[in-house]
Amino acid sequence: MTAYRIEKDSMGEIEVESHRLWGAQTQRSLQNFKIGTEKMPRELITAFAYLKKAAATVNGKLGKLDSKKAEAIAEAADEIIAGKWKDEFPLAVWQTGSGTQSNMNVNEVIARRAVQLLEEKGQPGSAVHPNDDVNRSQSSNDTFPTAMHIAALIAVEDQVLPAIAQLKATLQQKSASFADVIKIGRTHLQDATPLTLGQEFSGWVRMLEKGERNIGASRDELRELAIGGTAVGTGLNAPPGFGEQVADEISRLTGKRFMSAPNKFQALTSHDEIVFVHGAIKALAADLMKIANDVRWLASGPRCGIGEIRIPENEPGSSIMPGKVNPTQSEALTMVVCQVMGNDAAIGFAASQGNFELNVFKPVIIHGFLQSVRILSDAIRSFDEHCAAGIEPNRDAIARHLNESLMLVTALNPHIGYENAAAIAKAAHKQGITLREAAIASGLITADKFDQVVRAEEMI
Amino acid sequence: MTAYRIEKDSMGEIEVESHRLWGAQTQRSLQNFKIGTEKMPRELITAFAYLKKAAATVNGKLGKLDSKKAEAIAEAADEIIAGKWKDEFPLAVWQTGSGTQSNMNVNEVIARRAVQLLEEKGQPGSAVHPNDDVNRSQSSNDTFPTAMHIAALIAVEDQVLPAIAQLKATLQQKSASFADVIKIGRTHLQDATPLTLGQEFSGWVRMLEKGERNIGASRDELRELAIGGTAVGTGLNAPPGFGEQVADEISRLTGKRFMSAPNKFQALTSHDEIVFVHGAIKALAADLMKIANDVRWLASGPRCGIGEIRIPENEPGSSIMPGKVNPTQSEALTMVVCQVMGNDAAIGFAASQGNFELNVFKPVIIHGFLQSVRILSDAIRSFDEHCAAGIEPNRDAIARHLNESLMLVTALNPHIGYENAAAIAKAAHKQGITLREAAIASGLITADKFDQVVRAEEMI
Amino acid sequence: MTAYRIEKDSMGEIEVESHRLWGAQTQRSLQNFKIGTEKMPRELITAFAYLKKAAATVNGKLGKLDSKKAEAIAEAADEIIAGKWKDEFPLAVWQTGSGTQSNMNVNEVIARRAVQLLEEKGQPGSAVHPNDDVNRSQSSNDTFPTAMHIAALIAVEDQVLPAIAQLKATLQQKSASFADVIKIGRTHLQDATPLTLGQEFSGWVRMLEKGERNIGASRDELRELAIGGTAVGTGLNAPPGFGEQVADEISRLTGKRFMSAPNKFQALTSHDEIVFVHGAIKALAADLMKIANDVRWLASGPRCGIGEIRIPENEPGSSIMPGKVNPTQSEALTMVVCQVMGNDAAIGFAASQGNFELNVFKPVIIHGFLQSVRILSDAIRSFDEHCAAGIEPNRDAIARHLNESLMLVTALNPHIGYENAAAIAKAAHKQGITLREAAIASGLITADKFDQVVRAEEMI
Amino acid sequence: MTAYRIEKDSMGEIEVESHRLWGAQTQRSLQNFKIGTEKMPRELITAFAYLKKAAATVNGKLGKLDSKKAEAIAEAADEIIAGKWKDEFPLAVWQTGSGTQSNMNVNEVIARRAVQLLEEKGQPGSAVHPNDDVNRSQSSNDTFPTAMHIAALIAVEDQVLPAIAQLKATLQQKSASFADVIKIGRTHLQDATPLTLGQEFSGWVRMLEKGERNIGASRDELRELAIGGTAVGTGLNAPPGFGEQVADEISRLTGKRFMSAPNKFQALTSHDEIVFVHGAIKALAADLMKIANDVRWLASGPRCGIGEIRIPENEPGSSIMPGKVNPTQSEALTMVVCQVMGNDAAIGFAASQGNFELNVFKPVIIHGFLQSVRILSDAIRSFDEHCAAGIEPNRDAIARHLNESLMLVTALNPHIGYENAAAIAKAAHKQGITLREAAIASGLITADKFDQVVRAEEMI
Repeated sequence: MTAYRIEKDSMGEIEVESHRLWGAQTQRSLQNFKIGTEKMPRELITAFAYLKKAAATVNGKLGKLDSKKAEAIAEAADEIIAGKWKDEFPLAVWQTGSGTQSNMNVNEVIARRAVQLLEEKGQPGSAVHPNDDVNRSQSSNDTFPTAMHIAALIAVEDQVLPAIAQLKATLQQKSASFADVIKIGRTHLQDATPLTLGQEFSGWVRMLEKGERNIGASRDELRELAIGGTAVGTGLNAPPGFGEQVADEISRLTGKRFMSAPNKFQALTSHDEIVFVHGAIKALAADLMKIANDVRWLASGPRCGIGEIRIPENEPGSSIMPGKVNPTQSEALTMVVCQVMGNDAAIGFAASQGNFELNVFKPVIIHGFLQSVRILSDAIRSFDEHCAAGIEPNRDAIARHLNESLMLVTALNPHIGYENAAAIAKAAHKQGITLREAAIASGLITADKFDQVVRAEEMI
Repeated sequence: MTAYRIEKDSMGEIEVESHRLWGAQTQRSLQNFKIGTEKMPRELITAFAYLKKAAATVNGKLGKLDSKKAEAIAEAADEIIAGKWKDEFPLAVWQTGSGTQSNMNVNEVIARRAVQLLEEKGQPGSAVHPNDDVNRSQSSNDTFPTAMHIAALIAVEDQVLPAIAQLKATLQQKSASFADVIKIGRTHLQDATPLTLGQEFSGWVRMLEKGERNIGASRDELRELAIGGTAVGTGLNAPPGFGEQVADEISRLTGKRFMSAPNKFQALTSHDEIVFVHGAIKALAADLMKIANDVRWLASGPRCGIGEIRIPENEPGSSIMPGKVNPTQSEALTMVVCQVMGNDAAIGFAASQGNFELNVFKPVIIHGFLQSVRILSDAIRSFDEHCAAGIEPNRDAIARHLNESLMLVTALNPHIGYENAAAIAKAAHKQGITLREAAIASGLITADKFDQVVRAEEMI
Repeated sequence: MTAYRIEKDSMGEIEVESHRLWGAQTQRSLQNFKIGTEKMPRELITAFAYLKKAAATVNGKLGKLDSKKAEAIAEAADEIIAGKWKDEFPLAVWQTGSGTQSNMNVNEVIARRAVQLLEEKGQPGSAVHPNDDVNRSQSSNDTFPTAMHIAALIAVEDQVLPAIAQLKATLQQKSASFADVIKIGRTHLQDATPLTLGQEFSGWVRMLEKGERNIGASRDELRELAIGGTAVGTGLNAPPGFGEQVADEISRLTGKRFMSAPNKFQALTSHDEIVFVHGAIKALAADLMKIANDVRWLASGPRCGIGEIRIPENEPGSSIMPGKVNPTQSEALTMVVCQVMGNDAAIGFAASQGNFELNVFKPVIIHGFLQSVRILSDAIRSFDEHCAAGIEPNRDAIARHLNESLMLVTALNPHIGYENAAAIAKAAHKQGITLREAAIASGLITADKFDQVVRAEEMI
Repeated sequence: MTAYRIEKDSMGEIEVESHRLWGAQTQRSLQNFKIGTEKMPRELITAFAYLKKAAATVNGKLGKLDSKKAEAIAEAADEIIAGKWKDEFPLAVWQTGSGTQSNMNVNEVIARRAVQLLEEKGQPGSAVHPNDDVNRSQSSNDTFPTAMHIAALIAVEDQVLPAIAQLKATLQQKSASFADVIKIGRTHLQDATPLTLGQEFSGWVRMLEKGERNIGASRDELRELAIGGTAVGTGLNAPPGFGEQVADEISRLTGKRFMSAPNKFQALTSHDEIVFVHGAIKALAADLMKIANDVRWLASGPRCGIGEIRIPENEPGSSIMPGKVNPTQSEALTMVVCQVMGNDAAIGFAASQGNFELNVFKPVIIHGFLQSVRILSDAIRSFDEHCAAGIEPNRDAIARHLNESLMLVTALNPHIGYENAAAIAKAAHKQGITLREAAIASGLITADKFDQVVRAEEMI
């Protein structure tokens, strides 16, 4: 039998399961927003815990909060950061658009846990109030966007940038290894002039470099924190300097650089930072789509495709069809790209819908942002480890294509003239023979001369 | 200490936790696709179970499967439908794009569970093979899209259509109740000619009717099932009539009408049905955005907004600020709309990326579709129960606005002429007085005549 | 030297070029909205002309408008429909969101032209007023959405549906022609079991059929017209039955079925019809992306790609590289698909932004819708005429792939057992030889038997 | 009667209107791509002209091109830059995805015009060849992306950044002017604590600053030019250093800083730069939506809305309804935002679709990008000049709202205690009276004391 305790708030009494740390407002939200399965992201709860700890510390320093309470709040926050109370944050993404209920969820859990900690230390009967103490000098309206930026910056720096670096290192190494593998180029899906496989990979490396650069540069926008703005941006009820000091404290706690947003009115009602950084992520995603597609097309076959590279076989393909290696990592990655594109649309839309002193689409914005970072980072690493790292050239296929191609005919121009060269290519195409065969058959050039002149390695 | 058993597939041995029902291919997928937190949707697993049961039944009838095996498979599938094995489907959305691994997950769980069931019935040592028995006459390429359509149709019929009907009933009742409440109209956010609050609500009702109609009509596309197409659409390895009979059986099991897709090549590689139905859902979502916005704007205030309706107070607003009722249900609903818009972009993109005989973006498509239906249905019901059902007009505010408005001046035209009427309106605007005051002050009309002539109820 | 005349409206005087038919409000809009190069779509102006003619006719019948004026208005409208005054509608898409200024543009041009026509008929000095006569019983708020639906339905019925039918006929004919061309199937871009080229094309035909069906069904939503709702939906200032009679008249004039929207409040403020129909168009676009991509991949080469079909050469490829035929029609079509996807996002967003009695995003919605229809219809026809109609199989390449493939090994199972068959396939893969060669080399089957047993035509 | 001349290319003869400067390939494209009304953007043609001039100059310096030809090419290019030959670039956006046909259009026009210029200078009979001379050392595959970046950077620097600066200056001045106007704040559309109108505007200023900063930073990506990569990125047929020298020359000609892309393989096949910069533009657009919405909501009324600001009346509103000023500039701007959001989706999708050595979605990408910049820049300027510059506070309405609000009750807490203050607020809300009235009626505080204590100016 589940036991309940009675919690109260300004609307009256409400039952909460006895063992839960949360209180009345969390419980009301649970009952009022039975929508979907998406919970407020874990990363955001952690960010909130950093913020609450920092705020308690600064409130303590400024004499706004009893130092024992401040310490207990900080300790409770540390436990949340350490992942101790995962089940205590059950609220849906689809709640109030300011995220007030999740702010209160954090306040309630910390307050109740702080009281327990104080009891454990021999200070029973201490009262730590979710609003008056944990939320002191704060409002949902400035804490939620602050937590959004903390979570987003951590996600960008600790998840997606390292994932890019990991894949980039692999592809750089591959590019160097394949520097001597000359292959046919393809434009419009049609045979074109040659390049090396290393060069082809170098283009992918460059895309990742640009992703790193763009995401890296744009993330600075996330350093500006709304904290200190309180309800409407004026900072009412927050002591002077509160925003700056909390930002400094968060920097110290997270090891990431944050600062107080210079204009809090913008900080509460605009999310251009998230849109901008997600745009950089989308640009990377577009490149990853191209890379993952190239990989699976180059690996297509084994007999009836392009088949110029081999990728690792991670799962059973057809039990009877050797050589059929489904490019499943490419598939997972490209599906992730689709979701990132969709999230980009959702985030841009939501960010445009602020009114007056507040944008009330915050939860959907940060939900989409953190999902994009999470699935893209994971998918990049998965693609790297289970696919890219094992790519090997199929040198036979590459050589055969290069040899069969008619594009090398351009090398004959200086020797037998453009028109003769074109005639040879046409003959080869018509008769289905190689350029070399057609050239020799034409009597215009000897086999030796052909081999001496038509050298793909001179064309790259 | 966790115990493991050894499973084998064509790639060799792999450890699986002893108590798990799944086998080698599920386990490999778990290890190869550590991407994100999104699992293959529950609704899809249920749909797969219906399909596997139907396929076993038909295979049994056609003599392709031993009848005891077929029964055991059906029984295992029933347990899954009943929600008994929720933890046995741990695979990520971000896996192979054909969903092969989830098809195998279902096959493996059913096969192992069927063996257990046969043992329980005194038939130890029976072998039920995931591929040869559970997947008999099938391929991932036709089962996954079949399960997509089953899950999508159930979600549409059992979730979103009833949710629309519920909100529509509430708004219809409100519309009737408010038929006599005359209020100012607003176009371009500017005061316009009057209408009744009932008429305003009737527009919303009509939007929901159209949502019902559009979603209802488009869902017929989902009735066509790919089953019977097997690997590339030719139906290789499936007995004649298999697709038709399985579709009939699924109809019987689910109580929903399904049929075999007339062209299996389209069915494996196109998802225009999902795009089309989701487009209908998006059209509804656009209307819901408008309705939810209207509700919160009409409820804005309490003193400094429009304030023409009152909405239920579900959570504590400001503890000291009575009357401040945050429109949190509107906020949740409009955030859901943003996500639906984003999903629409992702789904359309993914559906366009098929190649040759298969589209390998199936999991992201069905993930987005089912998420949209789930959160939209839940949000509609939540909005209905916690907001719409409790909407009441603020008759004082409505009357004050109507009275203060200058738009009623048009009623004076026939009596004192257009130019005089315009002059009165201008005077009222300039002096900040009511039309009535300005009219009487003009000496062009008496108070009695004014009250007799300027009657909003004649303008609606 | 440009000559000007002075026009007046309620804001005062304004100069208009003497030869222009438009008046003051058009001129003000020109000056106030110097935004972009996109003009209000031609199709919408034509739709407005139908509407104005119909409204004048009905006003005349109902005694609301002098019959000579009504006739002159109808005649002027006919001239616009005939394309006579194209330069007289210079306003930007980016104007007032109700489209008031374009409604007035049409009113002004018709009014001035009607006066000229009356003069030509010996009735000089007749006054036809843009508002009082041409716009009688109407408001921008009901005329603009009415014109949107008229234009959209005409575009759907006369542009995109015939274009689909044209391409479908071509592909049906190709499908029949290629019924005997057996080729390798491909899933995950990997070789799979065979099918016929005719079957592959039949999947595309089915996609077009579904596009026809979905667009065809959803277009019924466009038949409902807002006319009769006037400013806020109540129909103030429109005579009873006006909406119904105008809808009937428009049906007569256009030869398309229209009706009066049953709820005008919805009709002014919701555009779910446009979103829904555009969703159907997007579903088709997703299919067209797949078809166009398949075509260019199948035509890739000539030597180093898949090369299973030949497409017409419409432009010079490389002057020296015979056989390089860039798939430019596929490229144009797939770029159009991207734009349609983008328009879908813009339209859904815009449609969600209505407030109270009006949605003021009408011009961007209809601009996007008509652009999508126009470019998609044109691109389909262009693709049909310059590409699809000339597609021919490259039977050599198709046969070579089929022959080289290892997938046919499944046919050996019943004869030599699964394990032997698999061993043969593995040997072929490893040694880079054909299945036939490996089979004979295995000593398990004779060449004659192999040829008798391994027949792709039995697998389709 | 139209006169024609015969042009030839490798496919044979084709008729071109005699007076046209374009040649065979342009003519073929005109005939093969009758799709839509969208022409290749003017800004791109100008960018191409800069590029062709720079290439001719560098080719001349490097001895690859006769100096007289080089000069004539440069002169012809200058004429195009000056806008002299606008009608000579008639090709559709929807053409080959590499933009080859527009590259050839420019080559053909320049070549023919250069011949005319040489003739005018007494050098009749000179041959300037579109490919051999104008396109020397180049390929469509490197020139088109080069022209994209040139056009995009010019558009960003010369159009959107100055437009932002203009509106920002206006809003900064307004913010300063309104520094003393204390008004009620609004969160969740509900009355909240006060701020100044100047503060509210300062948030908008900050959004524009961030737009400037984000677009300004991201635009550096556009400085990298593909030129020098030729057909597949290897630079085949381009002399060493060609890319670097042309980039320098383009910098000189345009006055903007460009450089040679360090990796040409990325430069031909990725468009992450455009996606990234457009993401920054979308972030700005989201903010502009919010600003334009705030403006129209604050100006709503005149009697039945919020009415705290007045905006300029640019067109006749209702002829009889004084004070109804439709916020048409907000409407145009918000519609533009929708289009920008749609373009963002289209661009991201298109950029993801590259294969191997080329992305063949270039025209749709640059079309969308330049359209976004053009309409957003124009709309910002239009909004600035016709709306923002004329915004004035409605001090009466602002004071009335502030006075009527109940939010100021918080100021009473220190004096009469939280519970008494709350009771006063509740009484005021219930009885529909002001806080001041309720406070005095409560007997807990005198009128004088109330006026001394409840001062909004202390709360901002």
